[in-house]
Amino acid sequence: MFTKILENINKTTPLVHCITNYVTVNDVANTLLACGGSPIMADDEAEVEEITSICTALTINIGTLNERTIKSMLKAGKKANEISHPIILDPVGAGASKLRTKTTFDLLENVKFTVIRGNISEIKTVYLGSGTTQGVDADVNDVITDTNLEEAVSFAKKLSEKTGAVIAITGAIDIVADRENAYIIRNGLSMMSKITGTGCMLSGMIAAYVGANQDQPLLATAAAVCTMGLAGELAYQRVAKENGGSSTLRSYIIDEISKMNEETLNGGAKVESK
Amino acid sequence: MFTKILENINKTTPLVHCITNYVTVNDVANTLLACGGSPIMADDEAEVEEITSICTALTINIGTLNERTIKSMLKAGKKANEISHPIILDPVGAGASKLRTKTTFDLLENVKFTVIRGNISEIKTVYLGSGTTQGVDADVNDVITDTNLEEAVSFAKKLSEKTGAVIAITGAIDIVADRENAYIIRNGLSMMSKITGTGCMLSGMIAAYVGANQDQPLLATAAAVCTMGLAGELAYQRVAKENGGSSTLRSYIIDEISKMNEETLNGGAKVESK
Amino acid sequence: MFTKILENINKTTPLVHCITNYVTVNDVANTLLACGGSPIMADDEAEVEEITSICTALTINIGTLNERTIKSMLKAGKKANEISHPIILDPVGAGASKLRTKTTFDLLENVKFTVIRGNISEIKTVYLGSGTTQGVDADVNDVITDTNLEEAVSFAKKLSEKTGAVIAITGAIDIVADRENAYIIRNGLSMMSKITGTGCMLSGMIAAYVGANQDQPLLATAAAVCTMGLAGELAYQRVAKENGGSSTLRSYIIDEISKMNEETLNGGAKVESK
Repeated sequence: MFTKILENINKTTPLVHCITNYVTVNDVANTLLACGGSPIMADDEAEVEEITSICTALTINIGTLNERTIKSMLKAGKKANEISHPIILDPVGAGASKLRTKTTFDLLENVKFTVIRGNISEIKTVYLGSGTTQGVDADVNDVITDTNLEEAVSFAKKLSEKTGAVIAITGAIDIVADRENAYIIRNGLSMMSKITGTGCMLSGMIAAYVGANQDQPLLATAAAVCTMGLAGELAYQRVAKENGGSSTLRSYIIDEISKMNEETLNGGAKVESK
Repeated sequence: MFTKILENINKTTPLVHCITNYVTVNDVANTLLACGGSPIMADDEAEVEEITSICTALTINIGTLNERTIKSMLKAGKKANEISHPIILDPVGAGASKLRTKTTFDLLENVKFTVIRGNISEIKTVYLGSGTTQGVDADVNDVITDTNLEEAVSFAKKLSEKTGAVIAITGAIDIVADRENAYIIRNGLSMMSKITGTGCMLSGMIAAYVGANQDQPLLATAAAVCTMGLAGELAYQRVAKENGGSSTLRSYIIDEISKMNEETLNGGAKVESK
Repeated sequence: MFTKILENINKTTPLVHCITNYVTVNDVANTLLACGGSPIMADDEAEVEEITSICTALTINIGTLNERTIKSMLKAGKKANEISHPIILDPVGAGASKLRTKTTFDLLENVKFTVIRGNISEIKTVYLGSGTTQGVDADVNDVITDTNLEEAVSFAKKLSEKTGAVIAITGAIDIVADRENAYIIRNGLSMMSKITGTGCMLSGMIAAYVGANQDQPLLATAAAVCTMGLAGELAYQRVAKENGGSSTLRSYIIDEISKMNEETLNGGAKVESK
């Protein structure tokens, strides 16, 4: 299912411009290298347009945003749009402060994103800021379960229609959707929530996957989401055997991404179409 | 001894607002998750008050302070005081530059801290900035040994009286004191000084422990100090068996924190009252 | 060959002031501790002169430069020159944006560096900015192989003459040269390019090695380059045995640096004079 997606990454080594938070930036960079891409971190207003121009894709993560970097995000995003580069938005903490919510809205207004990835509560905030609100129809719960899955999928498709972006909602169950189609992904494990940065790492990885597969953003995003979840499962097997803990898990996740191939991914992906 | 302390963390998953340095920020975040808390890093002046308001505790670490973040530290600290949230100060490098010393003094003057944690030389600088100096009575040596332990304990108690904060002086022997009582802690190992960030990680962890145990800041701080030291000892056992080195030690310390429970902690804590 | 170099580090524990990027800063700090030095990260204009004054050496890495830190780099560099401290330049991404190229040139114009370390394309950019250009004689290929090695060595020596700095060009084959002598180093392995930061870590380590051996910057730099490459080889043996991946490799490299001694280094260094 994902053979072609991985082949294109390996063939092209997509260079990804990351404007991301300083908490997980090292993991994002190492994940990008592990998955077959290459990272450049650059956040000064004076260089972001130029840097984004030499890259294949751009990922914007607002995890430790500040006045200075917000300007850079907008500038880089507009430039990437101009030259038709794929752009991923990771609205970390959108809804948690006015600054994060406003920045998310400003980005949505000024930049057309290819993929937007967040947890359900961040994505609901994105919904509020994307175009004219349509009443309170963004009324999904804050945890996606089998019970409210249909509703959540339909919400994701609607948001994709509003934004034009592939929507990736990650949690215990992941949803990756465009306006018409959705993938439900059940890879991963709950212990991944005990380490910081799997979301940021995934957003970086999506940029590489989509950068190398620009005609298939939906499938490429699904492939990245499966890769991250499956890497978590494989990493956990090693952690359990060694009686390790959360830090070993984090390290082994990147290991498993670096060892991932089509056989492992196609065999291990727990994905269904909706 | 620490059963209740750990129970309260597990029951409440304290959310900790961290304004911390970019050197060890990832380790601080992962340590907070490992110990049962949850981290939010946010340092822009425009959002720190709001972010601190949705948290349980605040930790301020001046390790890579700059003009912009110093303002955020003061703003967040004042807000946390207003709403009676516990605040931890980690005055990294206080005394090493005028900027660090002055910032430490400004913070002490404007914010009432719940716990102040540092090495002996940083804590001595804190002493100079806390209220009216009382001559040169902060005259303890720069390494705490069994020989000068009494003197150091009495210094810590006096500083607690001046500042109203629990004082944690960490080193080969750790002292945790309020104005009346002190704990002497002998967990840990010298190889921990070959990795960066155990102090920062500990300050983050203290915020979670105290956040979940606001009526017992002294005991909660002692529990966090024991946890870190004991995690170091357990991590070292694994490192030695695998013929690892300093990076493995760092990773395994976080592992051991993630696996810590009351049985291990109560059994392994090397703590005495003074 | 490197016995004395390592002895001097262990004897003096050189304190290194790092103005470095936030992507790999934690690895740089841990590498410095692992190799026997000690790191201080400080990048605010108000304190860099003071901090650099209490250190033994300074490393400037432009990996995530911004308007604010560029000023600090210049200020720290000038101060370190004033007091004759060794300074290492790591011009990350020089040539990739006007900001990086201009900053590299500004640094070269205002600061006399002891060592300049980069990949061949960064070093070629340095060449353009160092004094009067001498036509297009910087015409070496972008990958150093046995075929163009002579040419690359002569380029490195010429650049050393122009800048007065030891030049370290790292890649599959490493060259460390001053105006008269050069070392060719063949330690390391290709998988090291799948992790971020080995260059930054090396630049930090060079600062410690040169800081402790100020009369022998060429030999000390060669020792650091061999240490990094050899640590990579030793780390890889452990990774292969455990069926690990890129993140384990990164961690084990720092481990092996922390375990390095003269016997291992002298025995494993693949170095020849040119």
